[in-house]
Amino acid sequence: MSGWQRWLAEQAEEREAAGLTRRLRERRLDETGLDLAGNDYLGLAQHPEVRQAAAEAAVAWGAGASASRLVSGTLSLHAELETELAGYLRQPTALVLSTGYHANLAVVTALADRDTRIISDAHIHASLIDAVRLSRARLSVVAHNAVGAVRDALLQARADGERALILVESVYSVLGDAAPLEELAALAEQFGALLVVDEAHGVGVHGAGLVATLGLAGLPHVVVSATLSKSLGAQGGAILGPAAVREQLVNRARPFIFDTGLAPAPTAGALAALRVIRGRPELGALVRHRVQQLAAALAVPAPAGAVLSVPLGSPAIALAAQAAAAGRGLRVGCFRPPSVPDGVSRLRVTASAGIGEVDWQHAVATLVDVVKEHR
Amino acid sequence: MSGWQRWLAEQAEEREAAGLTRRLRERRLDETGLDLAGNDYLGLAQHPEVRQAAAEAAVAWGAGASASRLVSGTLSLHAELETELAGYLRQPTALVLSTGYHANLAVVTALADRDTRIISDAHIHASLIDAVRLSRARLSVVAHNAVGAVRDALLQARADGERALILVESVYSVLGDAAPLEELAALAEQFGALLVVDEAHGVGVHGAGLVATLGLAGLPHVVVSATLSKSLGAQGGAILGPAAVREQLVNRARPFIFDTGLAPAPTAGALAALRVIRGRPELGALVRHRVQQLAAALAVPAPAGAVLSVPLGSPAIALAAQAAAAGRGLRVGCFRPPSVPDGVSRLRVTASAGIGEVDWQHAVATLVDVVKEHR
Ligand SMILES: Cc1ncc(COP(=O)(O)O)c(C=O)c1O
Ligand SMILES: Cc1ncc(COP(=O)(O)O)c(C=O)c1O
Repeated sequence: MSGWQRWLAEQAEEREAAGLTRRLRERRLDETGLDLAGNDYLGLAQHPEVRQAAAEAAVAWGAGASASRLVSGTLSLHAELETELAGYLRQPTALVLSTGYHANLAVVTALADRDTRIISDAHIHASLIDAVRLSRARLSVVAHNAVGAVRDALLQARADGERALILVESVYSVLGDAAPLEELAALAEQFGALLVVDEAHGVGVHGAGLVATLGLAGLPHVVVSATLSKSLGAQGGAILGPAAVREQLVNRARPFIFDTGLAPAPTAGALAALRVIRGRPELGALVRHRVQQLAAALAVPAPAGAVLSVPLGSPAIALAAQAAAAGRGLRVGCFRPPSVPDGVSRLRVTASAGIGEVDWQHAVATLVDVVKEHR
Repeated sequence: MSGWQRWLAEQAEEREAAGLTRRLRERRLDETGLDLAGNDYLGLAQHPEVRQAAAEAAVAWGAGASASRLVSGTLSLHAELETELAGYLRQPTALVLSTGYHANLAVVTALADRDTRIISDAHIHASLIDAVRLSRARLSVVAHNAVGAVRDALLQARADGERALILVESVYSVLGDAAPLEELAALAEQFGALLVVDEAHGVGVHGAGLVATLGLAGLPHVVVSATLSKSLGAQGGAILGPAAVREQLVNRARPFIFDTGLAPAPTAGALAALRVIRGRPELGALVRHRVQQLAAALAVPAPAGAVLSVPLGSPAIALAAQAAAAGRGLRVGCFRPPSVPDGVSRLRVTASAGIGEVDWQHAVATLVDVVKEHR
C-alpha cells in the first residue's frame, strides 16, 4: 500500500467515524415525490418554454460552444443573454461564464491583485473564498453583516493605500439572511471602494435581485455576480457592472479566458427563464410568501431568500429528519459541518414556486410533523 | 474618478499600448466559412445524434440539474455518463463535473494538502496552475518534459516525507507535444507518487486517450482528468481513477460540492458523442492524419494532438495572418502572450475531422498561402 492509498483510506475512516461521509444519491426520471431540496426556486428548470428553448438551441447550435469565448466560442446567443440579463438587472453590461463558481473566481481574480485589500463577510460562499485565495490580495474577514467592521477595514485600507473590494452575498446561502446592501454601497462610495455582491440567491426570488430592488444597480462602485443555475433554472454564471469591469474580465480573468464557453442549451434555457420571470413577477412573490408561511408553521425566523433552514441537535438528527421526510415523499436537504458557518446542523427546505398549491400545503403539514418529531 | 476607475483605465491603456487587448467576436448561426479555431476535434458538437441527444435530455430532465450533485443534483444521466466514460477510458471510476476547469481544480485541491509536494510541468494549463495555488501544497515546477528533473524532485519529496503528486498534460495545449507518460508513470510507481494526467487534448484524438493507449489506465498511481468540451463536443469535465480518489473528491472537492451539477443537455451530448467515438475509431485516425498532412505542408513539426501551431514573428503578424485567413473564409486561432509558454506568438489551426475532405484540402492550400505571406 503506497503512501497515497494509506492517506486516502485514513481520510475515509476519519469521515466515517465523524458521521460525515457524503454519498451521491441518483435522481431517476420516473421519481415521484416533491423536490424541496434544489435551488430551482421558481420551478423554471422544468418550465415547458425553458426546456423547449434549451432543446432548440442544442439542435440549432450544437451540444457545445466548442472553444473559449475568446477564440470562436462566443455565440450570438451568449450576446443575446448578456444584453437581456443586463437590461433586467439594470446594469450597463453582463458577461456570461460557464458556472456561477467560475463567475466568482473570475470577478475577484481579475479585479484584485497584491495592491488590493479584500474585505469579506465571514459567511461568503466557498467559491468566493477560493476566489480570494487565488487572487493574492490581502484579506480582512469581518464578522457577519458587521457594517462597523467593514468601515474599520476601509479606514485601514485607505491608510495603507490599497484598493478596497468588499465581498458579500445579497442573500446568504445557509442562514438565508440578507446583507445590509444600502449601508455597504454607501461606504463603498464614500471610501472609493468596490462592492461586489453575489446575487446567487437574490435574483428571481427578489425579481431583478436585491441590488436592483434597492436602487443600487448601475452604480459605478457596485458589481453583481449571478448564477444561471438557481432561479434561472439552467447552468452558468454572470458578472454584471460597468463596461470597464467587463473589459477587465475579458482580458484578465483566467476562469473566463481558459475555459470553453457555456453550452448553447443552458444559455438558451437561462434566456427563456429570464423572459418568463420578466413576464410573471408574481413568481418571486409566491416564493417569498411560501417561505414566510413555512417559517411561521415551523416557528423559525423567515429568511430573505427561498431556502428555510431549521436548526437541529446534531448531524445525525438532521439526517434522521431528512430520511423521515423522504419516507413521506418529500425530498429536503440537510446542512452539516463543514458546510455551515457555525457548526449547527440543519434541515434545508426550499419553498419553490414550481410546486402546485395543494402539494405545497401537504408539504408544509408534513414538515411540521417531521420537525416536531426531531426537535 | 475613484481609485478603481483609474486603475481599470490604466490597465486598459497598458493592454492597448502593448497590442494585447482582447475582444469578443460573436459567431452567428448563419455564419459561413470553415471553423479551424475550435476544439471540436471530431466534429461531434455538430453531429446530428449528439445534438438530438442533448435536446432530448433538456426536454426530459429540464434545463438544469437544479442543485449540487450532493443535494438532489445527481441525475441517473450523470451516473450513466460516468459508467460509460470509465468503461471507455478503462478506469475503475469517473466523476463528472461542470467544466474541465472545475475538474482540475477539484482533483488537485481534494488530493493535495500542506503535506503534499506537487511536481508540475512548466507548460501546464491555467486551470492546473490555479488548482495548485488553491491547494496549499508545496510546489516544484520542472522544465517541460524533463523526466530527470521530476526524478530529482521525487527524491527530494521522499527525503522530506511528503506525498508527491506529478501534474502533466498528455498532449499540451499550446505546443501540442506529448508528455513522456510511460516514464512518468514508472517513476510514480517507484516513488509511491501519484501521476495526474490532464487528457483534455488526448481523449478522442487518441481514442480513449494516451493514458489508455499506452496501457497505463487503471493503475492505482495514475489519475486522469478529461474535458467533455473538446472531442466530446459538449461541456463539463471528469476525473477518472481509483474508487478511493473519487470518494475523496465527492467529500472534499469544493468545486464539486459547492457547484450545481452539470446541466442535462451537455451531459447527454457528451454521452452521445462518446458512443459515436466508440463506434467510429476512424475519426481519431482521420484527425491525426490531417494534422500530419498540414504540418508537412506548412513545414512545422507535427503535434501529438489535433492543434497545429505555426510560430510567427510577433503578435501583430499573428493577428494579420489570422485576419488574412478569415478574409479567405477560414476561421483560425491565434496564440499570443500571455497565453504561450515561451513568448512566441503563433497561428493556431485545428485539424478537425468534422470538415469534409474537399473543404479540408482547400483549407490546407489556403493556409500554405497565408503562412507564406506572413513568415
Ligand atoms: C452564493 C453562491 N454563489 C455561487 C454559487 C455557485 O454557483 P453555480 O452552482 O452556478 O456554480 C452558489 C451555489 O452553487 C452559491 O450558493
Ligand atoms: C489542458 C486543458 N485542461 C483543461 C481545460 C479546461 O476545460 P474546459 O474548457 O472544459 O473547462 C482546457 C481548455 O479549455 C485545457 O486546454
